[in-house]
Amino acid sequence: MLNRKIKMGLIGGGPGSFIATVHHKAAILDGKTELVAGAFSRDPEKSKKTGQDLMLDPVRVYGSYQEMIENEKKLPDGERVDFVSVTTPNNSHFPIARDFLRTGFHVMCEKPMTFNLKEAKELKKIVQDSGKVFGLLHNYTGYPMVKLARDMIRNGELGDIRKIVVQYPQGWLATALEKTGSVQAGWRTDPAQSGAAGSIGDIGTHAENLTEYISGLKISHICAEINTFIPNRQLDDDGNCLLKFENGAGGLLHVSQIAIGEENNLAIWIYGTEKSLEWHQEHPNYLYLMEKDGPTQVWKRGNDYVGAKSPAAARATRLPFGHPEAFLEAFANIYNNFIDTLRAGVDGDEPDPLMLDFPNVDDGVRGMQFVETVIKSAKSDQKWTKFVI
Amino acid sequence: MLNRKIKMGLIGGGPGSFIATVHHKAAILDGKTELVAGAFSRDPEKSKKTGQDLMLDPVRVYGSYQEMIENEKKLPDGERVDFVSVTTPNNSHFPIARDFLRTGFHVMCEKPMTFNLKEAKELKKIVQDSGKVFGLLHNYTGYPMVKLARDMIRNGELGDIRKIVVQYPQGWLATALEKTGSVQAGWRTDPAQSGAAGSIGDIGTHAENLTEYISGLKISHICAEINTFIPNRQLDDDGNCLLKFENGAGGLLHVSQIAIGEENNLAIWIYGTEKSLEWHQEHPNYLYLMEKDGPTQVWKRGNDYVGAKSPAAARATRLPFGHPEAFLEAFANIYNNFIDTLRAGVDGDEPDPLMLDFPNVDDGVRGMQFVETVIKSAKSDQKWTKFVI
Amino acid sequence: MLNRKIKMGLIGGGPGSFIATVHHKAAILDGKTELVAGAFSRDPEKSKKTGQDLMLDPVRVYGSYQEMIENEKKLPDGERVDFVSVTTPNNSHFPIARDFLRTGFHVMCEKPMTFNLKEAKELKKIVQDSGKVFGLLHNYTGYPMVKLARDMIRNGELGDIRKIVVQYPQGWLATALEKTGSVQAGWRTDPAQSGAAGSIGDIGTHAENLTEYISGLKISHICAEINTFIPNRQLDDDGNCLLKFENGAGGLLHVSQIAIGEENNLAIWIYGTEKSLEWHQEHPNYLYLMEKDGPTQVWKRGNDYVGAKSPAAARATRLPFGHPEAFLEAFANIYNNFIDTLRAGVDGDEPDPLMLDFPNVDDGVRGMQFVETVIKSAKSDQKWTKFVI
Amino acid sequence: MLNRKIKMGLIGGGPGSFIATVHHKAAILDGKTELVAGAFSRDPEKSKKTGQDLMLDPVRVYGSYQEMIENEKKLPDGERVDFVSVTTPNNSHFPIARDFLRTGFHVMCEKPMTFNLKEAKELKKIVQDSGKVFGLLHNYTGYPMVKLARDMIRNGELGDIRKIVVQYPQGWLATALEKTGSVQAGWRTDPAQSGAAGSIGDIGTHAENLTEYISGLKISHICAEINTFIPNRQLDDDGNCLLKFENGAGGLLHVSQIAIGEENNLAIWIYGTEKSLEWHQEHPNYLYLMEKDGPTQVWKRGNDYVGAKSPAAARATRLPFGHPEAFLEAFANIYNNFIDTLRAGVDGDEPDPLMLDFPNVDDGVRGMQFVETVIKSAKSDQKWTKFVI
Repeated sequence: MLNRKIKMGLIGGGPGSFIATVHHKAAILDGKTELVAGAFSRDPEKSKKTGQDLMLDPVRVYGSYQEMIENEKKLPDGERVDFVSVTTPNNSHFPIARDFLRTGFHVMCEKPMTFNLKEAKELKKIVQDSGKVFGLLHNYTGYPMVKLARDMIRNGELGDIRKIVVQYPQGWLATALEKTGSVQAGWRTDPAQSGAAGSIGDIGTHAENLTEYISGLKISHICAEINTFIPNRQLDDDGNCLLKFENGAGGLLHVSQIAIGEENNLAIWIYGTEKSLEWHQEHPNYLYLMEKDGPTQVWKRGNDYVGAKSPAAARATRLPFGHPEAFLEAFANIYNNFIDTLRAGVDGDEPDPLMLDFPNVDDGVRGMQFVETVIKSAKSDQKWTKFVI
Repeated sequence: MLNRKIKMGLIGGGPGSFIATVHHKAAILDGKTELVAGAFSRDPEKSKKTGQDLMLDPVRVYGSYQEMIENEKKLPDGERVDFVSVTTPNNSHFPIARDFLRTGFHVMCEKPMTFNLKEAKELKKIVQDSGKVFGLLHNYTGYPMVKLARDMIRNGELGDIRKIVVQYPQGWLATALEKTGSVQAGWRTDPAQSGAAGSIGDIGTHAENLTEYISGLKISHICAEINTFIPNRQLDDDGNCLLKFENGAGGLLHVSQIAIGEENNLAIWIYGTEKSLEWHQEHPNYLYLMEKDGPTQVWKRGNDYVGAKSPAAARATRLPFGHPEAFLEAFANIYNNFIDTLRAGVDGDEPDPLMLDFPNVDDGVRGMQFVETVIKSAKSDQKWTKFVI
Repeated sequence: MLNRKIKMGLIGGGPGSFIATVHHKAAILDGKTELVAGAFSRDPEKSKKTGQDLMLDPVRVYGSYQEMIENEKKLPDGERVDFVSVTTPNNSHFPIARDFLRTGFHVMCEKPMTFNLKEAKELKKIVQDSGKVFGLLHNYTGYPMVKLARDMIRNGELGDIRKIVVQYPQGWLATALEKTGSVQAGWRTDPAQSGAAGSIGDIGTHAENLTEYISGLKISHICAEINTFIPNRQLDDDGNCLLKFENGAGGLLHVSQIAIGEENNLAIWIYGTEKSLEWHQEHPNYLYLMEKDGPTQVWKRGNDYVGAKSPAAARATRLPFGHPEAFLEAFANIYNNFIDTLRAGVDGDEPDPLMLDFPNVDDGVRGMQFVETVIKSAKSDQKWTKFVI
Repeated sequence: MLNRKIKMGLIGGGPGSFIATVHHKAAILDGKTELVAGAFSRDPEKSKKTGQDLMLDPVRVYGSYQEMIENEKKLPDGERVDFVSVTTPNNSHFPIARDFLRTGFHVMCEKPMTFNLKEAKELKKIVQDSGKVFGLLHNYTGYPMVKLARDMIRNGELGDIRKIVVQYPQGWLATALEKTGSVQAGWRTDPAQSGAAGSIGDIGTHAENLTEYISGLKISHICAEINTFIPNRQLDDDGNCLLKFENGAGGLLHVSQIAIGEENNLAIWIYGTEKSLEWHQEHPNYLYLMEKDGPTQVWKRGNDYVGAKSPAAARATRLPFGHPEAFLEAFANIYNNFIDTLRAGVDGDEPDPLMLDFPNVDDGVRGMQFVETVIKSAKSDQKWTKFVI
């Protein structure tokens, strides 16, 4: 594989932003990547200021992503950015990703992938035509114990899956935070920036992605009820769905942003004919395996018995057992696989299948389909709405 | 109040039974009640054997509940049973309760109250006409921390309730246990004995009762999907419901008997505009109170600060903090209030409102309405089904 | 076995008492025992009042335990009390137990057994001479999961034990509660009633008893530091011990009554050469089994796999899994074995070894030796003090 | 402050190493530091290979730390390393740190600081004479909730501290792992590389440092028992200490490497006259605050109410609540403060007191004093050994 640091560019990340910083830290954590350029804000002054804080060469701090494309494409290979991370609000993901891909840059995109399903499908074609590597940052699939769970199910240890319960309650939007000047609350509750859904798009897509990733099953039908509890809020801040899966399994998916006291309580329970699994994002180093007539097993990250069962979990592990790993490392695992795929590609190598274990454009299409299905179901009097294909 | 031990009769409780024994232990725990008679099985030999094991006077061990009524009614007050506990399968609750009430005995009835809603409504009239005390054993409302939760909500501490999530997953019927000779599995999966619903009647009614008890809200609409995962099983072993409440709150209720590894994982989350609550039946001594911008509070049973907030919780507490109480004591709390009400009534006293804090025939009607609404919704293509009134 | 209810007498239990009520409820829980007589207070009026509350025949409510002996011994067998439970402060355990035993009654005694070691040794001889059944209420050994732990170790599953950590922190005496009129705090901090030790006698003996019961090992040496944090308190309210066991294992035992926020946080960790165990009294339905290279196992009370490993745990279980059992049932398990032993003895039957699984006079001697060893060590400048034999 | 990336050099980190990688990732996480040089192994080939994996300029990959000093000191400021991180086994910390300090480089040193107390005291003088910044990597004090705990105590919220219990059990050396070729086990059990103590030096010093950091108290006396359970192992693998603190508080400190099933179970309980605190390293985002008569409070990292109480915790926080942070971020917090202090110093600025919140040479002296006191006490028949000053 290519033996030089990969050059990263960052789109988004101005004052008040959150996820751009996480992308940056996660990308550089393993010492294989360096941030060299960025268009941090549509306000050139703010962009310049952020670039300064990040100790970047001022020449490579841009006032717009278009300017960035113009300049970076002229730089020689190995100097120009190899890929860009798109961390702006949802409505600009598509044009930015499209333009960078078409100019020949690899792209890592924050979720949800696009503003709507139409864009998502179009982006899929663009990715295919470009031949570039496209990653989607559904970070929760980066956790080692999530990979272990997936591998246990792939191995058939749970038998057939009968029921899945997945939840993602939060409480941070339980008041009209968007009226207080909060950047985070502002764009997430604005349909012009977020799209057709609020909580369903922001965290529902995480729950959907996690469920399908771990279980290997596709949702086939949804019966959804969405709510907006804060007066004058324009998007849903709560949603509850009954699910049917293609294999006949049933389930529930529920999310909320008004569940006071909940922080990021993403959790999943998968019940099979032989065994069951339980995992909680806020305690990510533990996976619970339950049997019919035996003690519950607490699998703990970093142990040999975990790696023996799941090479993907072992690869996604930096620290020994007892040294807790958390959100940032999971995020970095998505980057690590993306970057290794990219490095392998530079050399013309075939990437190891373990490297390809990161969310891609198909996950993004699936996520936008989920959003549209939920919205459609929520408007319908009929119980079941077929998952849009 | 009457200062003699209350005389209890027990209907049900033959070999292989479970809940009858719990009724017995719970009723006598506080030393205010004694078991003096019973019709433990429809098989007179089995009934006699059980009576012997219980060291009862053989004269008062009956081969049928009808025989029991005939004999007991002839005994003088203070000697004959004051009340009977009905612990047989669902299909016989109604005739037994009816006949005892009409003969002048108080009745404690295991849930679900009757075989169907029609019987439930009829029983309500019978109770009203009888002037007797009727209790329904929804034991989970007997837990002190459940009473504390109810009182916090009554006091307005949560503000308006926006969302309720309640679950009751079990795993014990994940295989065809009813084919192995299990008494418990046998009648619960037999529509002739259980009624129209399996898991929904057996544990769904508990979840419904707990939800309405704590929140003080009534469910107004249900969107239900029920499943039967075990081939040839005749009743549902899994069910998932979206809920609407009369005040506009939303929610979910889900139960299962095929969730391998789950034992009796009844749990509830109630999210208000000001605060939220969380309680887990398997860890019943703790109630979690969550605030908008403050640490999560773990309220622990038996402390002065609990009793100060909830006299009902204090009354339902036998042991100091740190000495865990559990299922049996909650069960005994239902009995304790029922028996004190009965004792107050014997003297013509007005029972203290705290004594009347036990489930009654109205809860039983509500439970059967819940069952019928869920069954109706499960058969419907429409999303929402109105809660039967 | 004898097929009539066993007649219980209760010594202690007047206003403000705690443990007498627990003895009563625990003894009658299984319907095999009934309270028929008592000397509840040295104040005859208070005793009479308590008897009335308990709905006892006033003739059998006594103003002193001596009066009780005089009257009860004249009653015919089957009517007089079969045994008495001694629940008074420590200083009166010995004379009461002695006199009842010598008159021919069986005795259940609250811990610690006596006021000092001298009495304990004397009581041992009296028990032996009397031929009566003597039980000591170290209730924590009544928990099913404690019995499972003992049986796992007996079976050799842990290999050789290397280290034991046991703790019993409480916080209820973190202030001078004894100055506020608290009955419980009053006698426990009074050397005239409690003996040479405060926390060490009251809860340290529980920790010692639990440790030796589960591990099957004897403590051989102690290095103790005891503290009294409340000004003018006369007995220790905190104690910390290094331990050596006869097999060469090491360990720690620490207790406190000034650990604010702790309730009854008795917990034990046992580390062997092959596996380890962990148990917490406040969450008693779970036993954690840890392996060298495998997931931690959570063993849950009431499951078949628990009973298969430990018949003693199965026998000590009343409710199915998921229906939590707690302190009172553990207490009742001590009574249950004591009473079954007594009933077997009445018939001249040899009690089943499982019945004999309750603390006895040897445990009581061991407890008083522990107290004296700790006090001796605490006064010594030498590191290690040999466990008194 | 200096607005360029700080240049880091790394000593140690060859094949089989663990902590060097953690130093590297932690140092670069925030994008303010870059690794530019290293002496990764005493074997030049291994060093070169590691440098290659890290994509370093081969010219700055050295075969020895002496060679590194020789070459780096010739480079111009801004190009040569600003500081080095010393991550070799204990016996080489002193000469390496000494030589770099004397040549004018800042130093971050892995704990325990030196091979023995003599070296520690000498190093203190060298640091003072050098005028350079010296950091010691006791990473656990980098956790935000540890800083919150310290600040609560500083604010007097706990009142006077009465008792501290601290533990650090591990199980990874429960077998003779050092005989299997394990690099980690090898040097840690070798007195020539580790010094006079095994578990006491490796993890006991962490427990000691955490205790004194949070409580603000100094240990004054120790009563220690240390054990070696694995045959032929030359250093302790288990140790148990009674503690006295200068303010009269008591306590216990116990560590183990043979506690099967334990991973890195560092935990601390601090009991005051008003409130108590509890913290667990394996669940680092939570701090438990316990009151005399109120619910237990669970303080959760990342919330405004945490930052309001502890600016140091706020500064040590990268992600919002619900996005768990863990070991690596705590480690990075030590680096972050060290590096900001260093950057402030380059400009001649006075570092903010919050920046100086990282372990330094005084903590290192204290740690070595702890080791020597424990060893001395363990050899003594006397109960108490005064903490070496």
